[in-house]
Amino acid sequence: MSQPFDTWMRQVQAGVEDTLATLLPQAGEPPARLHEAMRYAALDGGKRVRPLLVYAAGELHDADRDALARAAAAVEMIHAYSLVHDDMPCMDDDALRRGKPTVHVKYDEATALLVGDALQSQAFLVLSQIAGDAVRTVAMLRLLAEASGSAGMCGGQAIDLASVGITLSLAELERMHRQKTGALLRASVLLGAYCGKLPDAREAAALDAYAAAIGLAFQVVDDVLDATEDTTTLGKTAGKDAADNKPTYVSILGLEQSRALAQKLREEAHRALLPFGDRARRLRELADLIVLRKT
Amino acid sequence: MSQPFDTWMRQVQAGVEDTLATLLPQAGEPPARLHEAMRYAALDGGKRVRPLLVYAAGELHDADRDALARAAAAVEMIHAYSLVHDDMPCMDDDALRRGKPTVHVKYDEATALLVGDALQSQAFLVLSQIAGDAVRTVAMLRLLAEASGSAGMCGGQAIDLASVGITLSLAELERMHRQKTGALLRASVLLGAYCGKLPDAREAAALDAYAAAIGLAFQVVDDVLDATEDTTTLGKTAGKDAADNKPTYVSILGLEQSRALAQKLREEAHRALLPFGDRARRLRELADLIVLRKT
Repeated sequence: MSQPFDTWMRQVQAGVEDTLATLLPQAGEPPARLHEAMRYAALDGGKRVRPLLVYAAGELHDADRDALARAAAAVEMIHAYSLVHDDMPCMDDDALRRGKPTVHVKYDEATALLVGDALQSQAFLVLSQIAGDAVRTVAMLRLLAEASGSAGMCGGQAIDLASVGITLSLAELERMHRQKTGALLRASVLLGAYCGKLPDAREAAALDAYAAAIGLAFQVVDDVLDATEDTTTLGKTAGKDAADNKPTYVSILGLEQSRALAQKLREEAHRALLPFGDRARRLRELADLIVLRKT
Repeated sequence: MSQPFDTWMRQVQAGVEDTLATLLPQAGEPPARLHEAMRYAALDGGKRVRPLLVYAAGELHDADRDALARAAAAVEMIHAYSLVHDDMPCMDDDALRRGKPTVHVKYDEATALLVGDALQSQAFLVLSQIAGDAVRTVAMLRLLAEASGSAGMCGGQAIDLASVGITLSLAELERMHRQKTGALLRASVLLGAYCGKLPDAREAAALDAYAAAIGLAFQVVDDVLDATEDTTTLGKTAGKDAADNKPTYVSILGLEQSRALAQKLREEAHRALLPFGDRARRLRELADLIVLRKT
């Protein structure tokens, strides 16, 4: 626990890359093109915020290392699949992701569709292979399914789709993001905690409050960066939401109030973690990373 | 067990419809359009062959009724999601399914993409909610994830995509179908059996042999019907594979040899079930249904 945050973060990121490389189907195995495209979509990309949350929450109790690795890979596979599908022409129609051509541009649309579908199945598969207490494994699978489906991420996408060109209230925007990105971030925190021991009601409430705060902060900061940084820095098309006439925190609150909201949410996240004392250090540091990041 | 097959089949089909109506998100709940479209995709359609296999295999031992209902709903949700995605313009581009407009025609492409994604999550969710022995539930979730992903259904789709306009050998065509439709049919049989008790090695081998035979028979008969029946009878566009220059059993073996193969596979399926005696009656009857069906 005495490592500087950056060292810890880089270790987790490298570990997640290795785990994904192992737990994704191998590129040589048929159908080779699908497997190669699945690896293209999930490997070598992103900050791995969700796996970092899994590992950070794993520090709350002495977590099972194999379970953590599988949980981290599973949430990242779900995230990667959602990006592949979101980028498709019928959704956001984006050509650039993490500085590289999106899957449907690099391969083709049909392959992108199947890559997303197969990554979702693979996420549940790697989670179902966790050794040890089956009751815990079932709870983890249920959590991931809830966070991914129509009451979570997919539902948030649907609200997002329906909101193009419509004036959303702040409460409606918040609801959309709570599902679209918040649900999987929350699942990441809880899955990491489950790898140690099932949290009691008080701990679960504290983790929920933390996850709600960082989930919202994540989106507010995304909107601020989208409005202030360029495409090269972000590795994805900047200013796209505004161009698509999608409501954002910046369009509703303005830049300064959005930045103030992100800071307030960061403090809320820290406060939620107080009952965990020093064991919540990595979760606190991640709240800082999410709010203070520049990309 | 003394009911005629038709009565039993209709009872199962009606029960599955009720279960799906309960286990799918309600249409009034937001996001309403997504939920309505998920229900449109999964309710009121098809012969429910996979749920019938679940229930038929459940007769091998005294199966847990709640587990059977959830397993049947889960395999049907996976099947429904695969149809929604297959029908999309970037895949088969089909406007008609079960005699109704396909989801992307009735709604739009983005909604169809999300409907498929959310139905897949929902399948794992309803399976994860099975009460009772968690070890069994984990085994069932793993089985469904394997059957759905790149080693199963999605992988079969990818091989199918890659085979347009290419001359496949009979062995390659068989491999494609073993994954594309066979994997989920096999999972249906095994999931139904698991709802009773975990099969021993000899029983599992017998069920595998049965599932392999009916899985292949299903596809051979599909190809025969596609070549001989019209669109109205089938409720989907007839002759599409031939028009798309996709290899089929009929294009490789001809009509008569394809019919003979289907009969041979039916006999194989019956033979595989011999160790189960009279308890395999519904599974035998389903093999007959699959081979003798006219749509």
